[in-house]
Amino acid sequence: MSLDTVLSRIDSDLPAAMDRLLDLLRIQSVSTDPAYAEQCDAAADWLVADLISMGAQASKHPTPGHPMVVGHVPGDGPHLLFYGHYDVQPVDPLELWESDPFDPQIQDTPEGQVIRARGASDDKGQLMTFVEACRAWKAVHGSLPCQITFFFEGEEEGGSPSLVPFMEANKELLTADVAMICDTGLFESAVPAITTMLRGIVAEEITIKGPSRDLHSGMYGGIAMNPIRVLNKILAGLHDDTGTITLPGFYDGVPDLPDTIRAQWQNLAFDHATYLGDVGLSEPAGEQDRTPLEMIWARPTCDVNGIWGGYIGDGFKTVLPAEAHAKISFRLVGQQDPDAIQESFRAYVESQLPEDFTVEYDRSKGSKAAQMSVENPAFPKALQALTDEWPRPASYIGCGGSIPIAGFFKDILDMDAMLIGFGRDDDQIHSPNEKYNVESFHKGTRSWARILEALTR
Amino acid sequence: MSLDTVLSRIDSDLPAAMDRLLDLLRIQSVSTDPAYAEQCDAAADWLVADLISMGAQASKHPTPGHPMVVGHVPGDGPHLLFYGHYDVQPVDPLELWESDPFDPQIQDTPEGQVIRARGASDDKGQLMTFVEACRAWKAVHGSLPCQITFFFEGEEEGGSPSLVPFMEANKELLTADVAMICDTGLFESAVPAITTMLRGIVAEEITIKGPSRDLHSGMYGGIAMNPIRVLNKILAGLHDDTGTITLPGFYDGVPDLPDTIRAQWQNLAFDHATYLGDVGLSEPAGEQDRTPLEMIWARPTCDVNGIWGGYIGDGFKTVLPAEAHAKISFRLVGQQDPDAIQESFRAYVESQLPEDFTVEYDRSKGSKAAQMSVENPAFPKALQALTDEWPRPASYIGCGGSIPIAGFFKDILDMDAMLIGFGRDDDQIHSPNEKYNVESFHKGTRSWARILEALTR
Repeated sequence: MSLDTVLSRIDSDLPAAMDRLLDLLRIQSVSTDPAYAEQCDAAADWLVADLISMGAQASKHPTPGHPMVVGHVPGDGPHLLFYGHYDVQPVDPLELWESDPFDPQIQDTPEGQVIRARGASDDKGQLMTFVEACRAWKAVHGSLPCQITFFFEGEEEGGSPSLVPFMEANKELLTADVAMICDTGLFESAVPAITTMLRGIVAEEITIKGPSRDLHSGMYGGIAMNPIRVLNKILAGLHDDTGTITLPGFYDGVPDLPDTIRAQWQNLAFDHATYLGDVGLSEPAGEQDRTPLEMIWARPTCDVNGIWGGYIGDGFKTVLPAEAHAKISFRLVGQQDPDAIQESFRAYVESQLPEDFTVEYDRSKGSKAAQMSVENPAFPKALQALTDEWPRPASYIGCGGSIPIAGFFKDILDMDAMLIGFGRDDDQIHSPNEKYNVESFHKGTRSWARILEALTR
Repeated sequence: MSLDTVLSRIDSDLPAAMDRLLDLLRIQSVSTDPAYAEQCDAAADWLVADLISMGAQASKHPTPGHPMVVGHVPGDGPHLLFYGHYDVQPVDPLELWESDPFDPQIQDTPEGQVIRARGASDDKGQLMTFVEACRAWKAVHGSLPCQITFFFEGEEEGGSPSLVPFMEANKELLTADVAMICDTGLFESAVPAITTMLRGIVAEEITIKGPSRDLHSGMYGGIAMNPIRVLNKILAGLHDDTGTITLPGFYDGVPDLPDTIRAQWQNLAFDHATYLGDVGLSEPAGEQDRTPLEMIWARPTCDVNGIWGGYIGDGFKTVLPAEAHAKISFRLVGQQDPDAIQESFRAYVESQLPEDFTVEYDRSKGSKAAQMSVENPAFPKALQALTDEWPRPASYIGCGGSIPIAGFFKDILDMDAMLIGFGRDDDQIHSPNEKYNVESFHKGTRSWARILEALTR
């Protein structure tokens, strides 16, 4: 089957493909906020209908949370499972968006056209690159060069609570030769990449409780301990002055970077000054003896993602609040054990509580870091297909984020997972004004067509 | 003129006096939130009308903020100025109120009836005790035993920004022989008190700014410094492990407690176990070498009254926010200089900022601590009048809160100020479910009638 006719079809169908993506982006599928549950369901319905429209079998599968979408297209050649997620991050702070996050806009920028909307890059735009590649193959050739299973979830931004049970209960439905995950980025705008290292995560939301009610600092200031002060002390103690994380046992299972990987990353000539300069910073803040790419890809971290307590409205209110809250997350690497780190964190928090104080763990999640086995021959084939599409050669890279699903495919379904994506560093995923470059969408779709073809060789 | 007939009149008029107070409590005069500006104005109008209804001259005086109310009743004898404030604290967290904060309820409790509403104790209920005492004198005798000036402001909960300019511009209108301020409490439910020491305050709202936008911790965690981490470190460094405040020069001007005052306070047999136990605590949290009453009345403090940053909604969002915020206040004693403490605080904050980080001071306020001169003969006369009304003898006490106006009367109008109030420790001022005991309102009104009479002797 000819690849060139498929690529031409992708080029000519681009306007229609973008219209389809814009339809999906209008659905407010924020998975972590229960107020948007119906919209998550609507996004799943939309995907089922879209897969059916391109000739796939597809259906929605209920879970205790948001539904899974599974589609199938029979074919010869290798069997690929393609994973993406239709849920998106919350949009706050809404006032920082220059347009409605759910009214997608096509905008001209110095780097070409972009699609601006929540989820444009993470992950609806990326997910649709694969769907559109398959649609073009089907349209041109009437069939696909591989057997394909589509697998879309709606809980990725909330830690994928239903994913493992669903995979365990549906091994036959989901098992294929190799998994493809489109939720990562280019290394640079001209350099495509396959991500082979992903950080894991432990996240905790805690509430520090002290007095039985809010107090007036004029009446109790100086005699009653303030929960915000307790929380500040706990959080400030998580790092020492060199940026090292202080929890006992935290670095157990953190490997040193192999020399070969270190050399490959040095070849990437990562421009950390620009990476930081793009967001108004100049100094790397991590452990002092590590290179910037190591800090992002190969070292564990600890960050407070949210904190609140007391009076946060306009003006002053001299209150000692009854409680204070924080959301804390740790990024994990190598063999770090999420359960052991959670336990160490909780023991530390409890050791810092003064008399009369308690802590509540309001929610938590955890997943291990993942490392792909690039010995699988599908990896070099895909790497070459990407190199054929883009201006500069493709590379294996790491990723600072957590895509726990990569590990689940290995652990539960015994499949290698290939993380290929077309996002850019400036896509502002998880931030206001998220966007996806039209070039990412277009060349991303073309890349998948090339990869489908390469894997049949 | 007979005191007894006035006291009888106060007793028989109590139901009508409570109806008037409930009317005032229904006005949502939250001064620190601009959304309530009209309601503040309405509260001022209500007071003008009420003063006129009892035979006073009264009018509203505009300021750059909320208006002042000044009223006058001519008479023989000493000239007293009476100060109160008609503005109230914000009501959040609203969900913790058991009834609408602006729909006052009369409720039966084991300690007798209470009036439950925002402002019931701080300060509308207290303010009306004096107005009702004057109304009863006028009704019985047709005139008052003293010349009275009423002076009510609407910005006390926001640091009284218009007060000093207004006092300076209206010295003739406001100067009297002595000022009476009703914004403090009983020492215990049976022990009335005149507050002669008040803590001052320095308050700051700060924003720590780092990255130019919110970042995804998967992309920047480990290389970009987190503003919440910077803020936590700054705030955690304000106290050492013994509870001492670490700012250079902070304790300059903090006097040691004179032995005579220490002895008097020991006689009060303050039950700190109950005081803390009432709010679910057992251990005093202040400097380790001070007694509890010293901590509350005579030692300076530092508290974080509010903190916020990052994602604080439902679920997790692995964001590194662009900025983080806190409201911090210091309670001052003795000769501590608010300007010097603000300067020391800001120098400390700036010394803690990493490369690329900035701080913004979004708002601030400051006032010195105040100490009354109890040598003025009005003080022992009022003390005796209070002793005549209540079950146990009245006492001079301190107050952990800040009522800067007491100092302004001395500094600007050269008047001593007498702080007499009938609030109780469990009034939950500045908290949900604020209340004022009907006994406080009733015996408070009777107390003022006695004081008016005592000061004519």
